[in-house]
Amino acid sequence: MEFTILKKSTKSKARRTRIVLPHGTIETPVYMPVGTNGSVKAIKHQDVADMGYRLILGNTYHLYLRPGIEVIKQAGGLHQFTSWPHNILTDSGGFQIFSLAPFRKIKEEGMYFRSHIDGSYHMLTPELAVQLQCGFRSDILMALDQCTAPGITEKEAVKAMEITHRWAARCKEEWLRCNDQWDGNLFGIVQGNFFKNLRKESAQFINDLDLPGIAIGGLSVGEEPPVFKDFLAYTCEYLDENKPHYLMGVGTPEYILEAFEDGVDMLDCVYATRIARNGAVFTHDGLLAMKKERFASDFAPIEEGCGCYTCRHYTRAFLRQMFKTNEIMGPMLATIHNLQFMYDLVEDIKKSIDNDCFKTFKKDFLSRYTGGERD
Amino acid sequence: MEFTILKKSTKSKARRTRIVLPHGTIETPVYMPVGTNGSVKAIKHQDVADMGYRLILGNTYHLYLRPGIEVIKQAGGLHQFTSWPHNILTDSGGFQIFSLAPFRKIKEEGMYFRSHIDGSYHMLTPELAVQLQCGFRSDILMALDQCTAPGITEKEAVKAMEITHRWAARCKEEWLRCNDQWDGNLFGIVQGNFFKNLRKESAQFINDLDLPGIAIGGLSVGEEPPVFKDFLAYTCEYLDENKPHYLMGVGTPEYILEAFEDGVDMLDCVYATRIARNGAVFTHDGLLAMKKERFASDFAPIEEGCGCYTCRHYTRAFLRQMFKTNEIMGPMLATIHNLQFMYDLVEDIKKSIDNDCFKTFKKDFLSRYTGGERD
Repeated sequence: MEFTILKKSTKSKARRTRIVLPHGTIETPVYMPVGTNGSVKAIKHQDVADMGYRLILGNTYHLYLRPGIEVIKQAGGLHQFTSWPHNILTDSGGFQIFSLAPFRKIKEEGMYFRSHIDGSYHMLTPELAVQLQCGFRSDILMALDQCTAPGITEKEAVKAMEITHRWAARCKEEWLRCNDQWDGNLFGIVQGNFFKNLRKESAQFINDLDLPGIAIGGLSVGEEPPVFKDFLAYTCEYLDENKPHYLMGVGTPEYILEAFEDGVDMLDCVYATRIARNGAVFTHDGLLAMKKERFASDFAPIEEGCGCYTCRHYTRAFLRQMFKTNEIMGPMLATIHNLQFMYDLVEDIKKSIDNDCFKTFKKDFLSRYTGGERD
Repeated sequence: MEFTILKKSTKSKARRTRIVLPHGTIETPVYMPVGTNGSVKAIKHQDVADMGYRLILGNTYHLYLRPGIEVIKQAGGLHQFTSWPHNILTDSGGFQIFSLAPFRKIKEEGMYFRSHIDGSYHMLTPELAVQLQCGFRSDILMALDQCTAPGITEKEAVKAMEITHRWAARCKEEWLRCNDQWDGNLFGIVQGNFFKNLRKESAQFINDLDLPGIAIGGLSVGEEPPVFKDFLAYTCEYLDENKPHYLMGVGTPEYILEAFEDGVDMLDCVYATRIARNGAVFTHDGLLAMKKERFASDFAPIEEGCGCYTCRHYTRAFLRQMFKTNEIMGPMLATIHNLQFMYDLVEDIKKSIDNDCFKTFKKDFLSRYTGGERD
């Protein structure tokens, strides 16, 4: 995988990079919409691509359980199955086992868990996680890791980190074994819970594995914002700067700006699409809840100047009508807007880094975003 | 309203006509998708227009209750509110009061009913029905009628028909009063339940009102198919042939073909979009239920040769995955396909009338559609 640093900020660690992937070249910072079951929820893949997105995420846990690896392999991989001709990053499934499975047991061999769909038992080993993602023909695949929640003891955190490291090494071995059949890129994941010595140790271990990219896992899992910021900045200090840095499962505009400032290159989150389905839409002055009574006769678009399909065609009053009448059109139109907002935000961030004014951009954006109208 | 008969079949009453409406010219036969609350469910208006549709339906009952007439008037009418630049036909609200309201009482003045949303009481008079549709700036508006179910006595049917006639006359008067402010076209509705003498009488009364168009109401309301066909053909015999004929709330491909054969020019139905949301899709060999196990590894499109977005990008296996995982994308993709199928079917019907081979087309289509694969 070809990785080039295009530009570094002088006043922060924010940077611009280029990653050459099997389905096209990506410039970072990049935000990845999440396509859980094979579709980004409530929006056509063509509309996602038309906005400019070239890299989306798929969830191995969900796709492994439904429709299953055989169907996706028979389809020729996840790109063909989901009709997404650009890049796909898949996670390992470990995080969903952590967050969704009604039962899980960590063994040296792998993660033993029950499906949240039908209660069936499964064993996800590091080797299987790689094989599944190989079957998907993922452009970027993630090592199996053990995510942990805030509040555990250091001893427990050490145990989870060490198994994550052993699994990462086994993933690498399996990936090297499979790699001649396809050209996906394995990323390792830094864990270590909320212990700085462990975060540092984990970063160094993953650096030393010398995989194509490095991810930060186990953040934004329930800790307070100052703790998130502290551990993110601390962890980023120890990442090999010649590898792409991917922060998993983040997030809000506030967290995204924080992450890019610390030198994160890539991130994904369901936040933008999930809140859209509940009627919450981004504006530069903060979130708006479209169901609110005060939008009943508001014939302005969600945000003046936004170029998305929704803002070009519809008013807040119409959006409110769609959400009040439970029309699928509500989630559809709000999803379009929120993904366009995120895309435009990241484009603005890229420009600010190019012009070496990221910190000013961040300050101005947040001042308006957190100080403005709020629902 | 300019209405031109373009071509008549020699072997049936099927015909091609042209209707000049405020938002563009329509050629018939025409099928109208239904936009209940201001959106055709689960599909963007732009996608509906891109398929070729130029006339959709809005439901006055729903729009009157939510968002209310004032919001739509402030928006500048229903076209502006819903971002649909082509023609809109609105019903009077009478049918939804018949089918949805938890309480209704027919009075000479109008229909007294309770909202199915919040239980509030409302009175829909013929004058109000026209005023509402005038406020929507509907291209075609419908007179208030009283729909009745099969199985009532002739006495009850006479009473309902007569009040429908008096209301139609009051609607005409109100429409003439409002008409200088805008150029919508009022259609009258033939009722008469399942009594041929009443159907004939009602057709003659509505003909004599000399409104721009004539609709057939009170069919496809639970009667058996042979009864539907019999009463449809009978009623059509008595319609003024120099007016457009609109069959309300029909229907399936079988019923649509029946209707066009009898000289119906326009029809609307939620069937295509409703079954789509439940995973049923049209093919020329009959309906397919996308959730079925047998589609799990079926990598064909819904139908070979279909030019819709769904068939160009997705397989049956992917559709099944979307419906099994309850993704909004399932209804979205199935709706696109079903509306394209209906559009293409009506285009084929138009061609068959132009070539004076409608009856052959109908026979061939039904032979394959009803004899083929079925779920």
